[in-house]
Amino acid sequence: MDALDIEVVADVELDDPVFLEGLPGVGHVGKLAAEHLLEELESTLVRRVYSNDLPPQVDVGDDGVAELTHAEFHAVETDGRDLLILTGDHQAQSNEGHYRMADAFLDIAAEFGCESAYALGGVPTGELIEEYDVLGAASSEARVEALEDVGVEFREDEPAGGIVGVSGLVLGLGGRRGMDAACLMGETSGYLVDPKSARAVLEVLVELFEIEIEYESLEERADEMEDVIEKIQQMEQQQSPQVTDDDLRYIG
Amino acid sequence: MDALDIEVVADVELDDPVFLEGLPGVGHVGKLAAEHLLEELESTLVRRVYSNDLPPQVDVGDDGVAELTHAEFHAVETDGRDLLILTGDHQAQSNEGHYRMADAFLDIAAEFGCESAYALGGVPTGELIEEYDVLGAASSEARVEALEDVGVEFREDEPAGGIVGVSGLVLGLGGRRGMDAACLMGETSGYLVDPKSARAVLEVLVELFEIEIEYESLEERADEMEDVIEKIQQMEQQQSPQVTDDDLRYIG
Amino acid sequence: MDALDIEVVADVELDDPVFLEGLPGVGHVGKLAAEHLLEELESTLVRRVYSNDLPPQVDVGDDGVAELTHAEFHAVETDGRDLLILTGDHQAQSNEGHYRMADAFLDIAAEFGCESAYALGGVPTGELIEEYDVLGAASSEARVEALEDVGVEFREDEPAGGIVGVSGLVLGLGGRRGMDAACLMGETSGYLVDPKSARAVLEVLVELFEIEIEYESLEERADEMEDVIEKIQQMEQQQSPQVTDDDLRYIG
Amino acid sequence: MDALDIEVVADVELDDPVFLEGLPGVGHVGKLAAEHLLEELESTLVRRVYSNDLPPQVDVGDDGVAELTHAEFHAVETDGRDLLILTGDHQAQSNEGHYRMADAFLDIAAEFGCESAYALGGVPTGELIEEYDVLGAASSEARVEALEDVGVEFREDEPAGGIVGVSGLVLGLGGRRGMDAACLMGETSGYLVDPKSARAVLEVLVELFEIEIEYESLEERADEMEDVIEKIQQMEQQQSPQVTDDDLRYIG
Repeated sequence: MDALDIEVVADVELDDPVFLEGLPGVGHVGKLAAEHLLEELESTLVRRVYSNDLPPQVDVGDDGVAELTHAEFHAVETDGRDLLILTGDHQAQSNEGHYRMADAFLDIAAEFGCESAYALGGVPTGELIEEYDVLGAASSEARVEALEDVGVEFREDEPAGGIVGVSGLVLGLGGRRGMDAACLMGETSGYLVDPKSARAVLEVLVELFEIEIEYESLEERADEMEDVIEKIQQMEQQQSPQVTDDDLRYIG
Repeated sequence: MDALDIEVVADVELDDPVFLEGLPGVGHVGKLAAEHLLEELESTLVRRVYSNDLPPQVDVGDDGVAELTHAEFHAVETDGRDLLILTGDHQAQSNEGHYRMADAFLDIAAEFGCESAYALGGVPTGELIEEYDVLGAASSEARVEALEDVGVEFREDEPAGGIVGVSGLVLGLGGRRGMDAACLMGETSGYLVDPKSARAVLEVLVELFEIEIEYESLEERADEMEDVIEKIQQMEQQQSPQVTDDDLRYIG
Repeated sequence: MDALDIEVVADVELDDPVFLEGLPGVGHVGKLAAEHLLEELESTLVRRVYSNDLPPQVDVGDDGVAELTHAEFHAVETDGRDLLILTGDHQAQSNEGHYRMADAFLDIAAEFGCESAYALGGVPTGELIEEYDVLGAASSEARVEALEDVGVEFREDEPAGGIVGVSGLVLGLGGRRGMDAACLMGETSGYLVDPKSARAVLEVLVELFEIEIEYESLEERADEMEDVIEKIQQMEQQQSPQVTDDDLRYIG
Repeated sequence: MDALDIEVVADVELDDPVFLEGLPGVGHVGKLAAEHLLEELESTLVRRVYSNDLPPQVDVGDDGVAELTHAEFHAVETDGRDLLILTGDHQAQSNEGHYRMADAFLDIAAEFGCESAYALGGVPTGELIEEYDVLGAASSEARVEALEDVGVEFREDEPAGGIVGVSGLVLGLGGRRGMDAACLMGETSGYLVDPKSARAVLEVLVELFEIEIEYESLEERADEMEDVIEKIQQMEQQQSPQVTDDDLRYIG
């Protein structure tokens, strides 16, 4: 295997597609949003990306069959804008690996003719969310304005500390390549896998790209998480001083 | 020295051999199993693999003679299926190193004509084991069925988190190369070097490959470990609240 | 993107310029000093340096527009000595990365004709400072003497443990290239962003290079930090045994 | 600068020299021994080795002049066996770096005609030492016997865990290159810089290579350390339960 190995699974002609990145991150918001699109829309697996920057592991399916861990590109033809969606179970494991893989992802996006890119993710607020706003960052002022028109918020000094990892690089490296790139970040506590935050991000995408999806399965997942949150809140009321952030981290 | 240096020690013609990987891991199950096969069967050391992905160290023998740490391939001709067995004292020390070394190991296996590969290891259960089951994962459904026929168990969502390190890559990279690859994982507490778990794995191999071995030396080692376990259990009964997992970790 | 990518933004002819490095470090002293020079003097952004040794992230501006993180060179023509100033938000993230980036920075300095280099930084004392001395280290005895003449202190065995990171390498690699290189380190507690220490360093530069700057904005920043320090000292008096160094670390 | 940069400072014809490695390690035994030889014997600095596997730093001398950190080779002509001595302030900072630098060191040793190599170091015992034995490991049985003849001890299963770092690789890589290589390890507590352990190692070298040196400066250093040890022992008697190994670690 080469250090980075792109397997061509299928080729699909897309019409002016948008590249959407949905790898795991804060609250798994981007991953949930990307996977929900693949559930709701007809898609074709077009590329597998293997890399020795991913963890050295296989993932085992329910049938006992194991696959070397990798990232996947799916082509999606819609009534609105066509999509090229990146999903997977892992980000790169090192500083340089993040750059190498993001570069490869953008090469594939270019190959499919994507001139714009959206990195999907979450932004941690540290507290449970009532109303799910979506924060944005973009590679150009024009894109900032276009996103404000569909309700995306841009706040001074947020996210503090910048946007790190594959989402940051899809935006930053994409912008340097002349792509019209943006990052959409659903607010999320940061403690829990957050389907409601993913829905907030999806609602922006639906408006931007004029696609139609249902949210039922995501709502079911959200209800399950609500139950978890309720239990945590009951625990908090009963034993408030003992429950720390660490106890809540990434239940889901 | 090159970054990876394969020393040809001997060449042996094997007849349709199976590649077995037994490097250190959970409970040292794979290493114990592989080394027991080498004790019980006649073998020839055929390759030494040196790599700057291994720790920078020498291992000192009882005679004071030191050798640069390395992995070894042994050719084993049997009355049943021929074997090519990989042993050693260390896995690679980095993410990329795991990929580089697993690739080199599979190259050597291919050179000896191996079309199938078995990664041997342990799966931690977190508690002392009564009955030693062997869990499996494989590169194809056909292999899953064949292993189920000899008593290997395949359980949904196990091992959670996938199979990591050289065993995961022998299975995952081997599968990508078109090898018929599998991982056999003996259940083990995860706290102790576990000869009984190694025996459970060996019993699967004996049936699969129609070879004959004794288990006496492994049983002696297991009896020694039983004594250790008994002492721990006595300690647990006497001072139950103070004994933590950390006290038990990797005694052996 | 290449592993290291130097973007030519503009070209400016400088007359016998001095290279000043002001990346983040102890007390952000070097960064504050370099950025203050850019505020006070007219400058032209001439180079952007992108590298996969920098963290994989974008920094988001107040307008929501995100830029891939990078280091910047600014050309400054003055009535005294011309300057080439390096600023940025991050140092390299690995041992080898420090070497690679420092080498690239010195290449750019050479391209602009810099025959001397000054690394700006802070030296931690572990206690709040009354009088801000500037410690020095240099690539030659002649440079040591010249710096002593403008009040820079050279103390036996200081800084203990050497000078680490980009400042150490600008001095050490610069010296190996035959540059007249030095490091100027303002004393600072090490707990706080320290504009007063930056001013002490700037006063040395002003005398060395016969440039003229105001300190008003730096004084304002220093006053803000004084307020923080006073609050900390009040806290210390009230609850002296509980306040540890960690509580004070990098407030600012 | 290249990733590894060997500066030729001088060339000296040596007669059948032995390569001695004395970089920092347990109790700084190897470094003390190598530096004492350079103090006692006339030597010529012949090579400087710079590498981006060393920490990114300069070391500042008493005169304020800073040098990029590096390793040094010194040629020593004696009435007995000629020596090529490696000293420095740091080992490589990564797994692969250890291999790269040890390879470069052995290349230089070969260039000077060294057919045998001795790695000097300490072996930690965890307790204060009364009688300083020297443990050995070697690349051949013949070398083991020759070292036993001059009082070096070879003990089964020691050092447990092998010999790690540059000393391990000088022995292991040196042996693979066909050099007659050995490691001499003075017993030392592991808590303190240990001039007495260094003397024990030097006494072996003196007998092996028929050289003559005084030990006065090393004895003075040892007396200073004795004072430190006495104070620690007094502290131990007074407050025995509170003093932990960590309090004693690497005072010196």
